[in-house]
Amino acid sequence: MAVAKYTFDLKTSGCGEVIDITPRVREFIQSSGLKDGIGCVILPGSTGVVTTIEYEPGVIQDLLDAMERTAPRGIPYAHDKAWGDGNGFSHVRSALYGASFSFPFSQGAPVLGTWQQIVFVECDNRPRTRRIVVHLVGE
Amino acid sequence: MAVAKYTFDLKTSGCGEVIDITPRVREFIQSSGLKDGIGCVILPGSTGVVTTIEYEPGVIQDLLDAMERTAPRGIPYAHDKAWGDGNGFSHVRSALYGASFSFPFSQGAPVLGTWQQIVFVECDNRPRTRRIVVHLVGE
Amino acid sequence: MAVAKYTFDLKTSGCGEVIDITPRVREFIQSSGLKDGIGCVILPGSTGVVTTIEYEPGVIQDLLDAMERTAPRGIPYAHDKAWGDGNGFSHVRSALYGASFSFPFSQGAPVLGTWQQIVFVECDNRPRTRRIVVHLVGE
Repeated sequence: MAVAKYTFDLKTSGCGEVIDITPRVREFIQSSGLKDGIGCVILPGSTGVVTTIEYEPGVIQDLLDAMERTAPRGIPYAHDKAWGDGNGFSHVRSALYGASFSFPFSQGAPVLGTWQQIVFVECDNRPRTRRIVVHLVGE
Repeated sequence: MAVAKYTFDLKTSGCGEVIDITPRVREFIQSSGLKDGIGCVILPGSTGVVTTIEYEPGVIQDLLDAMERTAPRGIPYAHDKAWGDGNGFSHVRSALYGASFSFPFSQGAPVLGTWQQIVFVECDNRPRTRRIVVHLVGE
Repeated sequence: MAVAKYTFDLKTSGCGEVIDITPRVREFIQSSGLKDGIGCVILPGSTGVVTTIEYEPGVIQDLLDAMERTAPRGIPYAHDKAWGDGNGFSHVRSALYGASFSFPFSQGAPVLGTWQQIVFVECDNRPRTRRIVVHLVGE
């Protein structure tokens, strides 16, 4: 049993960008030498989401549309009144849909469906450089 | 310390079916011989949700109603225009509410409330056979 | 490799109270002696949420407002018709947004952003005493 720790950086163009990070997660599992266990991906930050989705443009747009229904951009946010950075909706999306994602891995690969990718959903209202952290615990 | 890996299959009737999978999770922990640790349940697929709920018909209906508000069936989805399978809403529900669920286990049982069950929420628009994967890491 | 298990209690005033539990999680990691691994926080109960947010009053209000849009208090719930405890909305919020949260920890501290805290969101419609459980797996 061991822990393997990885980080990588992403440059995003701001809210609406959804990035497939599955290839990085696969690489990390392979380079760890671990075969079986549990992994956890987190954005250490409060304006992004980590989840899974079929990585195709249509459903990505549909996901963003749904977030627009639950935490729309064009309404008043108390966060914006206090801090003036205009990204209250970004914080709310992250708190609702989660900045971390956990998954089993088996035989040196994440357990995912064929049409299921681990993605980082940028929710902030400006381009960001993001550090993503992946920990693996297993054997 | 060890990893224990389990899979099981579910037959679902399509969107609206919510299945209590806590008994299976309990069995797996017992048969692993592990007492304490962390477990992770995942649907390897992009049109279902794993979460917890009090498993009674009223609140299950309420959950489905809430999903209908945030990702309704009767609106246009870009996914459906591109792929024609009519389950854009299913993908969106899975991405928003999560295909995996993690939990602590202690003294050979999952740490859950008395009225709290781990459930698989079928979101797809047709009957599916689902493989669910459960990994346990602990001692 | 080892597992460390912790519990602590919270008194809440009911729906709308959001409590920063990061200090407790930090203490537990330090007292465990573990440096690197994965942690999991759960509410063993079906009417609360564990997530991360920038812990400032504005965005907390914004989060509560968003939950009010997706699982409002003033609408009929099947759960309430059956059980009469008036907290159908609380159950739905917990099922949608999650009663558990997982995170990596590194060098004896949770991997979080500077403005990101782990919080318990009380969703029930009355004051509660809550037991929160934190498990750590690592080395």
